[in-house]
Amino acid sequence: MDDVLILTTGGTIDKLYFDALSTYQVGDSVVDRLLQTARVKLPYRISELMRKDSLELTDGDRAEIAAAVLDAPERRVVITHGTDTMTETAQALAGIVDKTIVLVGALAPARFAESDATFNLGMAFAAVQVAGPGVWIAMNGTVFDGSKVRKDRSVNAFVGA
Amino acid sequence: MDDVLILTTGGTIDKLYFDALSTYQVGDSVVDRLLQTARVKLPYRISELMRKDSLELTDGDRAEIAAAVLDAPERRVVITHGTDTMTETAQALAGIVDKTIVLVGALAPARFAESDATFNLGMAFAAVQVAGPGVWIAMNGTVFDGSKVRKDRSVNAFVGA
Amino acid sequence: MDDVLILTTGGTIDKLYFDALSTYQVGDSVVDRLLQTARVKLPYRISELMRKDSLELTDGDRAEIAAAVLDAPERRVVITHGTDTMTETAQALAGIVDKTIVLVGALAPARFAESDATFNLGMAFAAVQVAGPGVWIAMNGTVFDGSKVRKDRSVNAFVGA
Amino acid sequence: MDDVLILTTGGTIDKLYFDALSTYQVGDSVVDRLLQTARVKLPYRISELMRKDSLELTDGDRAEIAAAVLDAPERRVVITHGTDTMTETAQALAGIVDKTIVLVGALAPARFAESDATFNLGMAFAAVQVAGPGVWIAMNGTVFDGSKVRKDRSVNAFVGA
Repeated sequence: MDDVLILTTGGTIDKLYFDALSTYQVGDSVVDRLLQTARVKLPYRISELMRKDSLELTDGDRAEIAAAVLDAPERRVVITHGTDTMTETAQALAGIVDKTIVLVGALAPARFAESDATFNLGMAFAAVQVAGPGVWIAMNGTVFDGSKVRKDRSVNAFVGA
Repeated sequence: MDDVLILTTGGTIDKLYFDALSTYQVGDSVVDRLLQTARVKLPYRISELMRKDSLELTDGDRAEIAAAVLDAPERRVVITHGTDTMTETAQALAGIVDKTIVLVGALAPARFAESDATFNLGMAFAAVQVAGPGVWIAMNGTVFDGSKVRKDRSVNAFVGA
Repeated sequence: MDDVLILTTGGTIDKLYFDALSTYQVGDSVVDRLLQTARVKLPYRISELMRKDSLELTDGDRAEIAAAVLDAPERRVVITHGTDTMTETAQALAGIVDKTIVLVGALAPARFAESDATFNLGMAFAAVQVAGPGVWIAMNGTVFDGSKVRKDRSVNAFVGA
Repeated sequence: MDDVLILTTGGTIDKLYFDALSTYQVGDSVVDRLLQTARVKLPYRISELMRKDSLELTDGDRAEIAAAVLDAPERRVVITHGTDTMTETAQALAGIVDKTIVLVGALAPARFAESDATFNLGMAFAAVQVAGPGVWIAMNGTVFDGSKVRKDRSVNAFVGA
């Protein structure tokens, strides 16, 4: 099936600011709104799996993500994910060889006027259509092989590894 | 060379609104600002070829675009372009077989808060890295083969043809 | 009655871009969305009178605007209006002495990411609460006496006159 | 002197999001950029006093704010401020009787696409021109007497008191 499945797991891309707490938390996913603004006509389905900062993701969470990918009828899967452990989830999905999986997130919340979220989601949406089976990471203007990339905290960016 | 070249030719994506005339015109390209907001780290170069509504593009303009693609050292080329004649330019570039060319534009100006421009540019940037040689069009959430797509004015969207 | 009435008449503030026509036209008013984003708690009512570029407003239209102000139960009235003939409408309303009327518009459409619309509407909303009876124009960061201001096309801004 | 002085003290209006820390902090003030986008022509001066969450403001900080207001040549002063203790600062300024002072902030950071910051700043800018001497608070679409308002945390809004 050539439709695109989008699994949301949380991360900065979906963070809200709560004034009462003076803090950020993961809120409703912005993905559907972004896809509508982008006038996407390719059929897609969005499924919210969890709302977590990626530092809080457990092995059990990663098993749940993998199961959701495997169980889905779609062969093309975009996963929105926090950036801090995105590469760990890429590793956990590496055994799935017959689907194209693209992990994507943002370094600034999508609700910010100046965020990388929309561009990154556009990258992920194209990569999931064009790239072959395997796990990919779309960040910082680059489509990385999911096993050959790391987040370099010193520059707050993903770099080839 | 794996850097990305971005040729800008005008179109809705770069349109400004001039209050004094109550009209729009193609303005400075927003592409560089969008790529900076997206925190793109992949090396790229932007070259402004022209600032035209695509209905005004002549055969001579298309020859100039083709020459710019051919003369460039980069093998990966994104072209921002008005949507009305994007497929005609795709045809004019069809003879270039050793480069990956992605045409992209927007149905609403990038300067709008609600525009498809940023998402589309993200798609184009990913497609130009991942797709093989040939001419592609990235619009409406889809990476189309440039020879198998048309703009359907009745729905104001690109559809497979 | 201390509620605020907002009459919308069109102008750049509400302009949309129509790709199919490559032109701008007055669209649905953005005023209600802007007031919700601003978390306005003061009671208000919005009434759409017309959707015109202010260069197209006739004496009859101005009479209709004046009648809408006079007939309203509210004593505080904000009017969104195109900028080119805003001062003419201010003159047409000058005879209404027991209401506070603030004319406001924008030099760039509110749908633009970079527009003066939201700030201007905030100014108008404050001025209509604080200013005494009479006709005021809130533009370019200034609350002008409606009879002592003109739009200077050479600088595309309102200046005291 | 009829110019407007804007004192910035921090608060949500200027909050940034730092991905590396998954936290927010008060960043460079956005006020000047907002006033430029709004095409403000009225002369103004911006002075950054501090960058604090308003829960962290001390009596000493409030004394410093009061001194800055008193020492300024301008009679019209806008103060950007966190919302949690805005009314306390209003009290601390209540003794200044010959200047018009408007406190303003935001419930969502100005860097958000959907924030009340720009509208509120517009309200403050108009109120400081139109209102008489005294201390005012411009929030939630309302210009409040600074001594007759409180932030109701249960609804996350300012209400008359």
